[in-house]
Amino acid sequence: MPEFRQNPISKEWVVIATERAKRPEDFSKGHPNREKLPAQRDDCPFCPGNEDKTPPPLFTIDGDNGWRLRVVPNKFAALQPDLSPHREQVGKFLKAGGFGMAEVVIETPEHNQTIATMDHPTVSGILEAYRVRYIELARDERVNLITIFRNNGREAGTSLEHPHSQIIATPIVPPHVSDHMTKCRVAYDTYGACVFCHMLREELSQRVRIVIESNHFVSLCPFASRSPFEVRIFPKRHVSSFGTISSEEIEDLADVLRFTLGKIYIGLKNPDYNYIIRSWRTESIQAKHYHWYMVIIPKLTIPAGFELGTGIYINTSLPEGCAEYLRKIDV
Amino acid sequence: MPEFRQNPISKEWVVIATERAKRPEDFSKGHPNREKLPAQRDDCPFCPGNEDKTPPPLFTIDGDNGWRLRVVPNKFAALQPDLSPHREQVGKFLKAGGFGMAEVVIETPEHNQTIATMDHPTVSGILEAYRVRYIELARDERVNLITIFRNNGREAGTSLEHPHSQIIATPIVPPHVSDHMTKCRVAYDTYGACVFCHMLREELSQRVRIVIESNHFVSLCPFASRSPFEVRIFPKRHVSSFGTISSEEIEDLADVLRFTLGKIYIGLKNPDYNYIIRSWRTESIQAKHYHWYMVIIPKLTIPAGFELGTGIYINTSLPEGCAEYLRKIDV
Repeated sequence: MPEFRQNPISKEWVVIATERAKRPEDFSKGHPNREKLPAQRDDCPFCPGNEDKTPPPLFTIDGDNGWRLRVVPNKFAALQPDLSPHREQVGKFLKAGGFGMAEVVIETPEHNQTIATMDHPTVSGILEAYRVRYIELARDERVNLITIFRNNGREAGTSLEHPHSQIIATPIVPPHVSDHMTKCRVAYDTYGACVFCHMLREELSQRVRIVIESNHFVSLCPFASRSPFEVRIFPKRHVSSFGTISSEEIEDLADVLRFTLGKIYIGLKNPDYNYIIRSWRTESIQAKHYHWYMVIIPKLTIPAGFELGTGIYINTSLPEGCAEYLRKIDV
Repeated sequence: MPEFRQNPISKEWVVIATERAKRPEDFSKGHPNREKLPAQRDDCPFCPGNEDKTPPPLFTIDGDNGWRLRVVPNKFAALQPDLSPHREQVGKFLKAGGFGMAEVVIETPEHNQTIATMDHPTVSGILEAYRVRYIELARDERVNLITIFRNNGREAGTSLEHPHSQIIATPIVPPHVSDHMTKCRVAYDTYGACVFCHMLREELSQRVRIVIESNHFVSLCPFASRSPFEVRIFPKRHVSSFGTISSEEIEDLADVLRFTLGKIYIGLKNPDYNYIIRSWRTESIQAKHYHWYMVIIPKLTIPAGFELGTGIYINTSLPEGCAEYLRKIDV
């Protein structure tokens, strides 16, 4: 029987449509393994030998045989650091200059890797690059929000095969984000605790939606997942900004992230996905009511008119079933 | 130079990324014309002869040679009218019974039509069916919101080729919708007028984003369009619920809708799209601050990590350019 489930933070509802329910393995995409791609492509702007195709790096991790990771400004950036964030009215509408920073993290020299197939040092290097750039970008007083994300595959909106993620700093905290933050404050005033901490305690007590629990992190399929195999990774420590992650936490998260994505890679046969790291606004690093987290959205379904019109997502999988399926996959 | 633009109602921002800008015709999808499909398919549950594959109709328009349109309950409904909308806690989470009504409007017996290729009586019949069912569903006191939508093509989330649209009645007005309504009230208190009426006057004065203006409706590409060729259709009369549309307005809207979709069909070569009709909550039919409207979203781009994480959409087309391109297409 179908049921509505409520997201405890946003108060948005999803429909878990069990009448249409599929088995977890029915969502498998059957994409070819990344290993079947060439390890290097001459025409790839992110492969070694083509360093002149990108602007000079902002951060590099070097190895014995050249660079292991490079962070470069996005050559085709939608936002630019040399523009003014000045706002002005156009008749009764409001516009602003396209100020912002857009950076690309070239995660490895190897063209055919993805986080699910990378070793521990490579993934901890990526997280270290995120931290270094987050801290640097947050120093700019014009910046108010830093979003870290990864688009993996065409259906996730990228055309570049080479493993990479992105960091965008904006002068704007849009309502989509600030309204969410306000709801977290309302929840704080309701529960007397950070709603994420509150919800994590409940998840660790029910233990039916956990995928991986480590010393410092929990990855789980949310109670009100909007789509099949949505996974969120939360730090156990109450902390609002990704920029304050410790080195010990980076080492821990590297494994939680690559094992979570590894389970998805194997269990759903290399689906395209987006992941996003959401943090508190950069004016301050800590808020009692906000908790940074990571959301992984495998691209297994298409939001249609009902979802776009109402924000109510119809999910044809059971989050508990997705978590159980992922837990059982060896990585 | 890229610029931020603000939606005057939601206050969300988009980036109009002119550095990456494409010409309008570059968004063309090159899908085959609908006319190349067969006019009838034996294995299609919505084609004539297969009426027993659907539940009995709730509304029918008959012609000289059988039915012209049928509205039937969705056989694979995500929500069901015989369930209770009762809410209960599961630990610290909230769930509710999957009560609701889901109906399918089988728009024509002809398998290979789409609104862009239909004649006037067929499209006005569809709008009439929406009105009849809207009014009927709104009578149920358990219903609080009625959403009418159409998913056209696989990339818009449908697997059924036969021309159809859907109506879903829910007992819930989710925050995605109710927060939007609240913002309209705030805007009403700011401008002293319905923000849609206010914005329409501005659009009709600037006249750079209008696609079609008729006696009763305006179709336009919004100032802060989230994606290329997004089009919204607004009634000029201040009215909050689709259910109160007059017969004269239905005749007018039928042409505005089929010409707008016709321009998209020709100009972008039959792209997949979603459209949605958003109305005020069904407890009352009129609110001073809310205005029903229709939004058409051609599926030309994929929202990626940045869009999903921040709600800031990067649009690589200029709304004024999209409107000009559509205006010039003869239908």
